[in-house]
Amino acid sequence: MSDDTPALQDFYPEDVAHCYGCGRLNDVGLKLRTRWDGDETVTVFTPASHHTAMPGTVYGGLVASVLDCAGTGSASAAALRAEGRAIGDGPSPRFVTAALKVDFLKPTPLGPPLVVRGRIVEIKGRKVVVEETLSVEGTVTATGHVVAVRLRDDA
Amino acid sequence: MSDDTPALQDFYPEDVAHCYGCGRLNDVGLKLRTRWDGDETVTVFTPASHHTAMPGTVYGGLVASVLDCAGTGSASAAALRAEGRAIGDGPSPRFVTAALKVDFLKPTPLGPPLVVRGRIVEIKGRKVVVEETLSVEGTVTATGHVVAVRLRDDA
Repeated sequence: MSDDTPALQDFYPEDVAHCYGCGRLNDVGLKLRTRWDGDETVTVFTPASHHTAMPGTVYGGLVASVLDCAGTGSASAAALRAEGRAIGDGPSPRFVTAALKVDFLKPTPLGPPLVVRGRIVEIKGRKVVVEETLSVEGTVTATGHVVAVRLRDDA
Repeated sequence: MSDDTPALQDFYPEDVAHCYGCGRLNDVGLKLRTRWDGDETVTVFTPASHHTAMPGTVYGGLVASVLDCAGTGSASAAALRAEGRAIGDGPSPRFVTAALKVDFLKPTPLGPPLVVRGRIVEIKGRKVVVEETLSVEGTVTATGHVVAVRLRDDA
């Protein structure tokens, strides 16, 4: 996938596109972008040198942040697909996080891109549950579990 | 408590004081600081306007980040106290996060300080478990559960 592939977050309505993690209109944010790769979602982010914790490792709060926005993005992509729509086929529905669980399996080395893969494990009404892995150069260093809830259109 | 009260993170050894969340030597980080208030720890952070998610609310990744570092800081404070030491009585021991669980109970309004209160619920060997609340102007908007593990001195 190239960076030109449309991402879910490219189609958030303007009034909900300022999230520090994934809003395309937040000038200082992380601008996370989520796409489909078959039945999984993929979100890639390369940390800056200041996103550190212990020397040489990625800050856990950043790991949590990436898993959080990749989770709500994956939920939105899943909701689209459940309606028979592709990413970019109309605005992306906006989800918020109800619960986030991160297990830090080992230190995440700082430098290469972080690759988050999401798997949709439940869609029920406005709720979508996503299981995630975060890996660096093929090694999974953290897992995420996100419960996302769709904002009502009149919210 | 004034900002002059010594905080746990003021006494991390220099080689582990660059964390984006709580390292006093990370120039662009959040510089989170944790103190005792009786048997609870307190960590206060005022978000910037760009730490947003939905309009008017705090970004969930920031909530997770604050809970994460407040958790490891609380664990360190608890380890000191278990040894009969006060904050500043020698270097603060350094903990890393093994697991972080955040429940977002309601939107966190953006503007006033976020106040995290931590309660130590388990100390067992190198492991410390911390339960946290995050509140804004007295209303709890999120809770955290942190499992922290002490770095070995030779790490």
